[in-house]
Amino acid sequence: PGNPKKVLLFQQIFLSSASNSTIASYLRSLTSHPHLAGTKPSLETIHYVKTHFQNLGLETHTVPFQTLLSYPVHASVSMHFGNGTVLNLPLNEMGIPSYPSSGLIQPYHAFSPSGTVHGKVVFANHGREDDYRTLGLMGVNVNGCIVIIRKGGGLSRGAVVKIAEKKGALGVLMYAEGDVSKGSFGSGVERGTVMEGVGDPLTPGWGADEDGERLKLEDKKVLERFPGIPSLPLPFESAQLILDSLGGPLAPQEWRDSGRSNLSHVGSGLVMVNFTYQVGLAGWENAWGDINFTLSMPDLGLHTIGTGLIYFGLRELPSQLQLIHFCYVCMEPMEGEKKLATIYNVVAVIRGLEEPDRYVLMGNHRDAWTYGAVDPNSGTATLLDIARRYALLMRKGWNPRRTIIFCSWDAEEFGMIGSTEWVEQNLVNLGAKAVAYLNVDCAVQGPGFFAGATPQLDNLIFEVTKKVQDQDSEVVATIYEKWKTMNGNNIQRLSGVDSDFAPFLQHAGVPSVDIYYGRDFPVYHTAFDSFNWMINNADPFFWRHVADNTALLFDMLVAGVWGLLGLHLADDPVLPLDYLSYAKQLQEYKDAFSRVLDGNISLTPLAASIQEFTSAAKQANEETKKLMEQEFTNDLLALKIRALNDRLMLAERGFLDTDGIKGREWFKHLVSVFFSKIAVRTEVLHTGSRIFQFAISTEALTYRYGNMICFLGIYGPRSNYESGLEFFPGISDAMAESKNMSQKDGHAAIKHEIWRVARAIQRAAAALKGELV
Amino acid sequence: PGNPKKVLLFQQIFLSSASNSTIASYLRSLTSHPHLAGTKPSLETIHYVKTHFQNLGLETHTVPFQTLLSYPVHASVSMHFGNGTVLNLPLNEMGIPSYPSSGLIQPYHAFSPSGTVHGKVVFANHGREDDYRTLGLMGVNVNGCIVIIRKGGGLSRGAVVKIAEKKGALGVLMYAEGDVSKGSFGSGVERGTVMEGVGDPLTPGWGADEDGERLKLEDKKVLERFPGIPSLPLPFESAQLILDSLGGPLAPQEWRDSGRSNLSHVGSGLVMVNFTYQVGLAGWENAWGDINFTLSMPDLGLHTIGTGLIYFGLRELPSQLQLIHFCYVCMEPMEGEKKLATIYNVVAVIRGLEEPDRYVLMGNHRDAWTYGAVDPNSGTATLLDIARRYALLMRKGWNPRRTIIFCSWDAEEFGMIGSTEWVEQNLVNLGAKAVAYLNVDCAVQGPGFFAGATPQLDNLIFEVTKKVQDQDSEVVATIYEKWKTMNGNNIQRLSGVDSDFAPFLQHAGVPSVDIYYGRDFPVYHTAFDSFNWMINNADPFFWRHVADNTALLFDMLVAGVWGLLGLHLADDPVLPLDYLSYAKQLQEYKDAFSRVLDGNISLTPLAASIQEFTSAAKQANEETKKLMEQEFTNDLLALKIRALNDRLMLAERGFLDTDGIKGREWFKHLVSVFFSKIAVRTEVLHTGSRIFQFAISTEALTYRYGNMICFLGIYGPRSNYESGLEFFPGISDAMAESKNMSQKDGHAAIKHEIWRVARAIQRAAAALKGELV
Ligand SMILES: [Ca+2]
Ligand SMILES: [Ca+2]
Ligand SMILES: [Zn+2]
Ligand SMILES: [Zn+2]
Ligand SMILES: [Zn+2]
Ligand SMILES: [Zn+2]
Repeated sequence: PGNPKKVLLFQQIFLSSASNSTIASYLRSLTSHPHLAGTKPSLETIHYVKTHFQNLGLETHTVPFQTLLSYPVHASVSMHFGNGTVLNLPLNEMGIPSYPSSGLIQPYHAFSPSGTVHGKVVFANHGREDDYRTLGLMGVNVNGCIVIIRKGGGLSRGAVVKIAEKKGALGVLMYAEGDVSKGSFGSGVERGTVMEGVGDPLTPGWGADEDGERLKLEDKKVLERFPGIPSLPLPFESAQLILDSLGGPLAPQEWRDSGRSNLSHVGSGLVMVNFTYQVGLAGWENAWGDINFTLSMPDLGLHTIGTGLIYFGLRELPSQLQLIHFCYVCMEPMEGEKKLATIYNVVAVIRGLEEPDRYVLMGNHRDAWTYGAVDPNSGTATLLDIARRYALLMRKGWNPRRTIIFCSWDAEEFGMIGSTEWVEQNLVNLGAKAVAYLNVDCAVQGPGFFAGATPQLDNLIFEVTKKVQDQDSEVVATIYEKWKTMNGNNIQRLSGVDSDFAPFLQHAGVPSVDIYYGRDFPVYHTAFDSFNWMINNADPFFWRHVADNTALLFDMLVAGVWGLLGLHLADDPVLPLDYLSYAKQLQEYKDAFSRVLDGNISLTPLAASIQEFTSAAKQANEETKKLMEQEFTNDLLALKIRALNDRLMLAERGFLDTDGIKGREWFKHLVSVFFSKIAVRTEVLHTGSRIFQFAISTEALTYRYGNMICFLGIYGPRSNYESGLEFFPGISDAMAESKNMSQKDGHAAIKHEIWRVARAIQRAAAALKGELV
Repeated sequence: PGNPKKVLLFQQIFLSSASNSTIASYLRSLTSHPHLAGTKPSLETIHYVKTHFQNLGLETHTVPFQTLLSYPVHASVSMHFGNGTVLNLPLNEMGIPSYPSSGLIQPYHAFSPSGTVHGKVVFANHGREDDYRTLGLMGVNVNGCIVIIRKGGGLSRGAVVKIAEKKGALGVLMYAEGDVSKGSFGSGVERGTVMEGVGDPLTPGWGADEDGERLKLEDKKVLERFPGIPSLPLPFESAQLILDSLGGPLAPQEWRDSGRSNLSHVGSGLVMVNFTYQVGLAGWENAWGDINFTLSMPDLGLHTIGTGLIYFGLRELPSQLQLIHFCYVCMEPMEGEKKLATIYNVVAVIRGLEEPDRYVLMGNHRDAWTYGAVDPNSGTATLLDIARRYALLMRKGWNPRRTIIFCSWDAEEFGMIGSTEWVEQNLVNLGAKAVAYLNVDCAVQGPGFFAGATPQLDNLIFEVTKKVQDQDSEVVATIYEKWKTMNGNNIQRLSGVDSDFAPFLQHAGVPSVDIYYGRDFPVYHTAFDSFNWMINNADPFFWRHVADNTALLFDMLVAGVWGLLGLHLADDPVLPLDYLSYAKQLQEYKDAFSRVLDGNISLTPLAASIQEFTSAAKQANEETKKLMEQEFTNDLLALKIRALNDRLMLAERGFLDTDGIKGREWFKHLVSVFFSKIAVRTEVLHTGSRIFQFAISTEALTYRYGNMICFLGIYGPRSNYESGLEFFPGISDAMAESKNMSQKDGHAAIKHEIWRVARAIQRAAAALKGELV
């Protein structure tokens, strides 16, 4: 059915319409200044994106939401000595002339509370439960102290702060050691949110309409998403000053081996700490001021290293560390005459001809902590280029079968707020009509193709990557071939909640894709994520090939894959969704659990449901084949194809459970979500790998903090070998929690979660089969 | 589009194919013996229905579930006198020769716990909070007593028992005064369930698969659905014996005026009560025994009245009442070697030609407390006849556009268990594909047409009733015309949970209809609900017109309306769903709340959402008109109609809320459900009126029992005028609960529920509009 030859032609035109200048010009325009969500400068990028779509003749909507955001007003950290001397530590990135004039926001943690605290400092390594246990064995208790933590332990910022809070810490300072080999970019300081969950905290489950209901800031549901103690990111060199001041026991060798920090003692014996923070609410206009700090304390042995950083060499003298923390605020507070921040999604629509009521969504966030050249505007430039090329197809007579929707999200950096609000607002229609959501966040961080997807999209990704040529080397090959050489065509699962696919997949059950080039780029969330860095580092072919049509090569490759995925999903008469891949994946998940549970608890319900699902997937594939063989179309066949497509579309919804994951009920997907209570991934991984590996250890089960539970495996031997249990989060959580129950109750809890997952898989199988039973 | 003339022809054939013998023969076969759910005799009716469908050539499925049911093992109530004499009271219906040989089950309350209690007796009128308050004013406390209650206060059995339990009562005896004018039928005793909620209590939210998960009997979620004290229905005459024995204060005049019971004192001063019950589990084989009672106590003034009933004339002498209660049990208990009861739905399918994946469901329950001639097999006979007539159409070349599904439910009497399990089992596919559910329970109870529906089906009901002729009188007229004369074409709302539409509407959001002739029939749930009673009372034209083609006239009229509704919904190219009626209804609901709230709390969000909904409804109607005008069909038009139909079908789903009604989370519909915490309707109303009217009274807000709260209005003057707030249950509940909060918290709770309803209406509007925003 349909006209495959014509469709092929349009795919060819799409591929051949890549240009050497457009992506570069889009990216340059988007990154000309910082454009943090909710700020005035961000309005320019909104306008830029909107105008771009409109100029292409696309139906374009600007969709505002009013949400709680969080900006710093003032922050300072100072060390206080016994003799009354005060040393204010640098908090900003070196090499940035002036934050106010550049429009850069100082490094901070969004949604951290403000206040003032006083205490000694203790180095707690990565801030994991394990690390506190190690400290405990050394006789070091962080209760009443400020902890200093280095990035890299596999926890989200929010989780690190919540654990520290639970241990009785007064506040948290974080730093990244950076990559020594990357030189100057090591002086970047990583901004980020410490809020848990996704979406506007004041409107959980519904769109943050201007006139809609809002929970109060003091509502328990709101408060539980924020840490109770303040935190702040520090430049490496400032952190080093504090580390050097620490007394107490010697740090374990493994804590010292792994980084470039000059760590010897963990604290806190010799260091008194004074940590102050203050609450304040302010609009954006007042949201940043100069950060005052003093470098002049030569009599205390300070000296300058590197690019003007101070180094404090006398371990015994400092007696206090003071951190005057920024306040966390909504830009314009909600009560009385005050208002919330307004964010804007931009949505452009190409109406489908045959099935306007089926949606293929292509999304990327637009807001950035700083210039956002990598994160996220390498993706935005790509999205705009795809729109340009689709518009070109339309001028040549193309009309997609289904509706294509370009989504430019705002406020992703604060917790996927723009996309989440939109998904919540449109849940009924998306649930009934969304075919797939194709996400690109940091399109280009460096070389190497990466893809994440729900498994029914695996085959389509393989097919599409076979059609796009990668000119990045002597031998021209397809992306697929290079990908195979590089990392074996490994499609990762969308188990994190670290980009805008999270609400689509985990709240609405929409099959999703996430693609990118490179990972773990060093300037992540720093002031150095700029067009220049992109040119010189992430996409090295940008200038080299500017003359031969390969400017921003990686971006163009992402555009090729992303755009072709969109064309297939929008045009293929029968949706290119293969659930046998999903069945295989579920089987692997089950097998992994089976190994971990080691016969202690029956997985029979799970096995039976996967069998049902597999048989439904086979049947659907056979029907697809049969329908594709039909030569001509009529209204009966059109309805037949539609019916099959509905089943293919709705199967993913079956994995949703109305009650959601216990304790995190907004998350409705019982299967693909990892986000098991510690599945908040490392910040390093945000930008790249979607897989978080962790050790299996019986004792790891005791890792608990507040409502959060670190599940690091169960029933396994204590060892360092790794297992990727990034699925069935409800079962994982129950396994973790069972540790604190009687064996009978614990087993019952685990069994119940196994049943819930089995029923979810049954529902998906029933939707795919399309028959009542 | 389509071929309206051909469709009209098939409708004509359907109407003309009514026969004078089929319904009568179906009914006679179905009611030849009692067929309580889960019992062996019920297997015969299952087989009868299944064979009927199969013989018509329909694809027929028998769908078993394993659920918790409850049967009596032994029950006795005896009065104990100071001198040691014991008087066992009759518990069974008079005029029934032998229960064991007839297959009748003794009158009991399913899911009542078993046990033995001792106490004085107090008459508590209808068992409402109000009645206990009245008792309190008279200085009578029921704590430690057995209460005796007469039917008719607007509460469900379960609610009556739960209130009594909260008041400290040890047990509950219930009786109905019956209708004096109905003569012998006054001696029937009403069976029924006292379980709250719907569906199998062991599998809340999922289908009760044989191999599936089950909660334990002691699970809190299970226990909270059962009362904690035993209850039993009494024959009127046995109740009279107890009433006559009561001392204490004189009953208020209004308690005495309304009935035929010879009530003077309310108790408990002169009467000591001994109420015993015992737990026991048993399979069906042991589930009933002879009820022993003694009539010989002439020295105490006993004498016989009526058809052998005893009358006890000496008020002062009896000192104890003993009720040895039946045990409540699953037929075959769940643990160990014991099993649950198996119930069977029978489902027959006529596949749609164009849209096999859209379902029109026509359902009726098959199980009965006794012979079930009215409840429910007058409906079953009708369903079977419609199947016969549809099969006839098929032989004449008819194929419905959409799939029609005949559903014969089991175990409705225990709490809509058969239908609920099936809906839970098929939730994903029903949610995506069910166009409407058309229910008939007691098809014929007497004269007069009644209809209940979700409002988008109002117009279709009017249209269809205009097409069916009612020959029940001198002047032949349409049902519509007679209905108009009789009760003004009033379509009631499906606000109760008293028949099988409950899971479809309130859990799955499927537009629903319920139709019937007559209401409040006197033999409800008694041994007298037999074929003979039906002939002589409910459908008086049954024999009179046997010769002239109008046997079981009312049943045939129900079949006409029901069958035509099915044909329209299955065949009309554009679904006959008119949401302007819904908009109007919502507006009326809002206005009613507005009067009750009297400006204290803003209803602006509700008003705005209704406006949105109204505009979406208008737009949908216009599009319907336009599409109906298209002359020919092709694949583009077919998909266009399908897209509009999807919107019409899905709009009702928008009213569902994933969190459900607070405290009763299984109920997902925020709008049409009444079932506000006291909206458990009277048993009288079960069979007829779906509207429960109650008085508005500020003080009524204090009516609370356990988790149940009697909301009888707020902010209104204390008066007896009535208001039908049978909608927006979440708001009603919050209003009731707000009484126990500070004004600030109370208002916040009400506002939050108003927002939730407003968002539900917005979702419905968005689904109907079909556009992302
Ligand atoms: Ca929200
Ligand atoms: Ca169930
Ligand atoms: Zn990003
Ligand atoms: Zn980011
Ligand atoms: Zn019934
Ligand atoms: Zn009934």
